[in-house]
This record gives sequence, structure tokens and C-alpha cells, in this order.
Amino acid sequence: MSGYPVRVNGETSSSISVTDRGLAYGDGLFETVRVVSGQPTLFDLHMDRLSACACFMGIELSVPQLKAEIADFLVAVNQERGILKVILTRGSGGRGYNPAGCSDSSRILSFHDLPAYKGTPEESGIHLFSCETQLGQSVLAGMKHLNRLENVMARREWGVDSNCLEGLLLDFDGRVIEGTMSNLFFVRDGILKTPNLSRCGVKGVCREYILHSANSWGLKTEVFDYAFSELVGADEVFVCNSVNGVWPVIACGDERWPVGAVTCTVRDKLMEVIDG
Amino acid sequence: MSGYPVRVNGETSSSISVTDRGLAYGDGLFETVRVVSGQPTLFDLHMDRLSACACFMGIELSVPQLKAEIADFLVAVNQERGILKVILTRGSGGRGYNPAGCSDSSRILSFHDLPAYKGTPEESGIHLFSCETQLGQSVLAGMKHLNRLENVMARREWGVDSNCLEGLLLDFDGRVIEGTMSNLFFVRDGILKTPNLSRCGVKGVCREYILHSANSWGLKTEVFDYAFSELVGADEVFVCNSVNGVWPVIACGDERWPVGAVTCTVRDKLMEVIDG
Repeated sequence: MSGYPVRVNGETSSSISVTDRGLAYGDGLFETVRVVSGQPTLFDLHMDRLSACACFMGIELSVPQLKAEIADFLVAVNQERGILKVILTRGSGGRGYNPAGCSDSSRILSFHDLPAYKGTPEESGIHLFSCETQLGQSVLAGMKHLNRLENVMARREWGVDSNCLEGLLLDFDGRVIEGTMSNLFFVRDGILKTPNLSRCGVKGVCREYILHSANSWGLKTEVFDYAFSELVGADEVFVCNSVNGVWPVIACGDERWPVGAVTCTVRDKLMEVIDG
Repeated sequence: MSGYPVRVNGETSSSISVTDRGLAYGDGLFETVRVVSGQPTLFDLHMDRLSACACFMGIELSVPQLKAEIADFLVAVNQERGILKVILTRGSGGRGYNPAGCSDSSRILSFHDLPAYKGTPEESGIHLFSCETQLGQSVLAGMKHLNRLENVMARREWGVDSNCLEGLLLDFDGRVIEGTMSNLFFVRDGILKTPNLSRCGVKGVCREYILHSANSWGLKTEVFDYAFSELVGADEVFVCNSVNGVWPVIACGDERWPVGAVTCTVRDKLMEVIDG
């Protein structure tokens, strides 16, 4: 436990019912939000994604209610910086897989310290572990749902002892998809490129922000299917998420990349938003 | 809630920690076991699957301890018939997706009444809903893990008002895979056939029992990749799981099949084991 209070449906609690479908089937969604100056960052994008995914999955969600609970929770937590984790599950009920009749969704709010990493990975860059775990196509591609076993199995591959701070995931056809907890971008011919996530992967809020903002930063973007060979020939590579921002990637297996100028631009622009 | 007591790690409890990875990531497994005469049926197959999957996923499990807890729980529940649900999660701990250091797995035992269905589907047969939800390849194919959102999304397609008691799932390449809560078999040219589940789907305990026993019942079996057209041309079709046994399938969309002799043989043989 993080030592901070936890709220379940607006009440202080550290437990949920064993009948909650979030536990039974991973029937829910989550967001991990970077908090700076006591305020959630990229918050509209987080709420928009949560709302869109809940709608697709048919999970009840009142965004105004959730926003009010989050505001109240962050006041109670009273921390300048950290991570707000929001879990939304379909709640208890239904019959087996059938969710019919489930209308009391569960909202779980918790707070965590920002992770501490050795050195300054956002400046010096990181090594990517090349994961054997491959991703398959899913009707729930793009969503940040609670079915995250593939991420766990991939992260488990390199344990704690390695230099790698992140792992690279490909799909079963060898396309580059993402990191275990981040999205991936690379720069080639001056264009900022990131994998198409319509078959698998999570459409991260940070990725969305970069794709929406790149034009205003003077960058052209491309979303497409890329083989690993495209990454090998890239001028720069980075991963990003809404908690850690941008980490330049300097190595994956035998491949090497520099910490490049485009990466630094994106990193610095993003830090203005998520680091106050 | 079912009204029966629930045990978490051997203690009576109806809740688990919000930090449990079973909730956070669906990082766990489950078994639904038919109980008859107060005893679990097909129990060795259930425990073997749970044990094998836990080993693959790196989740701690003492099978003797779990068996002792189950025996004790069933004595406390004191019911002739019903369903024992066993959930095993990786417990709390680790850092993000990284499960390193998680050694206190959670065991959750609950008991439920056998589901009641209109009529006698095991005799008259059922209609299959043809689901649009498709299954993709997964490194966790075959396992009964807690990442079951695809089953929920598929089951959600036909709600509660339809005649259909089960839905048919294909993969993204159009291969027949399984039902939302059951495995599928069909009979063609006198051979009992069931889909290959090495890419996706759940290897049900009932399916395993049938595949292991078929020879002793005078039946030849085949496990292979089948297109829906193979099902159309089948002489008999049925679905099975370890709670409901065998349900003949008599219709799916415009297709019709009879309640056939092989299906009845398998159903009756299975009922000897799971219905005392």
C-alpha cells in the first residue's frame, strides 16, 4: 500500500467486493494520471478516453460525478506531486459473463508516489528490452482496460536486474506496437512516426497529446504499420507515457540510436504540460 | 451475492484489497467446478489446469493447501449441489506491471447455485447466437485466466431476451473457436471434432475430459482448424462445459442440426461423472 487513503465510490475504503466484475473478468478500465501542483495533468484527455471506452463497453459512468470525486480526493490527499490512479469497473451483478442488469459501476481512486528511476532517463535515454511476448488482434484494441496480462507477462521477461527500463512489444506479424507501459515513436526523414494501434495496443493519452500537438510544434506525423526494420533505420526513437513523459531510446538489442533533437523538442514541450 | 459464505485465503471474507493484481490487471486464474453430493467433480482436471497455468504465469500456488481449503469450505457450505468458484490471483505487490516480489497469491472460494435454464437444453438442444466479437491470437491461449473481457463483450451482444443460451465465437481469420462459456464439438463422417485452441480460446476441463475419454467410448477425435463451413456441413454439433455438461446445438443463424446419437452418448457418459 502507498500509505495514502483510497476511495471506493466516494467513501474511504481499501477493499472491494469479491463479486466485483473488475476482479472476476477484468471488466473495467483505468487511468494513471500525473498530478503536479496538486492538479491532474492531461486531465481532459484522460477523462475523454475513460468516457469513450466506458461507452463502448457499456459501463455506466457519470463524468461530472467522477470529476467531483477526484477533486475532493486530491484535496484530501494534499500532495504536490504524484500519480492518481482511477479504476472504473462494471461493479457487481449480471449472470456469468452476461453483464445485463449491472448499473452500479465501481470507482476506485488511489494515489501513489511518482516512480523513482536511477539517473535521468529522460535525458540520457534508456535501453529497450526486446520482449518475446507478442500481441494479438483484439476487439478492444486501443483501450486502457483491466485485461493487462500480456503487459504483465512481457514485463516479467526481464525482471528487475536489467538495465532496461522498458520492453518493446511486437504483434504476431512482427509489427512494432508499443512498450509494456508506454507508446513508441520514432523519427525518420524528419517525420514523427508512431504505430497504428487499431488491432492491438493501448492508445496512450500522452501519444494522443503528441499527435494532436505535433503540427503546432512544426512536426509532421504519420500513423502506420511498421516492421522492426523501420525502427532499425530510424534517426531517433522514444517512448512516452503520461506519468514519465518522454524517454529517449538509445538501444534495443544490437541497435543504437542517439538522443535526437526532435525527441528533445517533444520531451520539453510535454514537460511544460505535465511538469508544471 | 449468493448468500453462501466466501473464503479469502482460508478466512471468511467478502472483500479483497483494492491493490490486488487480480483487480488491477486481471493477473490471475479461475476455475468453476460443479459440485455434486457435496464433492467437486472433474476435480483433478480442474486442479491440473490451475496448477499448469499458475506455473506458466509464475503465480505461487500450493495445490495441497488449496485442496485442503476447498475441502474445508465445502464442508462449511454443506450443499449437495452447486458451483464452486476458485479464483487465484497473484496478490498485491510488484511495481506496475512488474510482478517481481509478489509471492503472496490470493485464493478466493465462493459457492453458487447451479444455473436454472428454461426447459431441458441438454435434451432439446439450444440455439447459438452468432457473435460479431472475434478472438485474436494470445500468448495466453488455452488458459482460464481473469482477462475475460472478450467473453463479456460477446455475451453482451444478445442480452437476455433471446432464445439463444450460448454464442459462437470465431477468430479474426474466420475459424470456429468456442462458445462464450463453453467449448464446441461437432461430428462429421463419424469423427468427433473440436477446434485447435493453440492460438486463442479456453481449453475447458470438460473438453479435456471428452478428448481423453472418447477412445474408450468408441469415438475417434480430431483437433484442427475449422472454418464455419465445416460446421455447416456437420452431422451433429454440441457445446460443453464442466457446469452444464453437454448441450446439443440445433441451430445457429439459418443452419440446423439434429440432436444426434454421438452427442447423446457423450452427454450421457459425461453426466455419469458430473451428475453423480
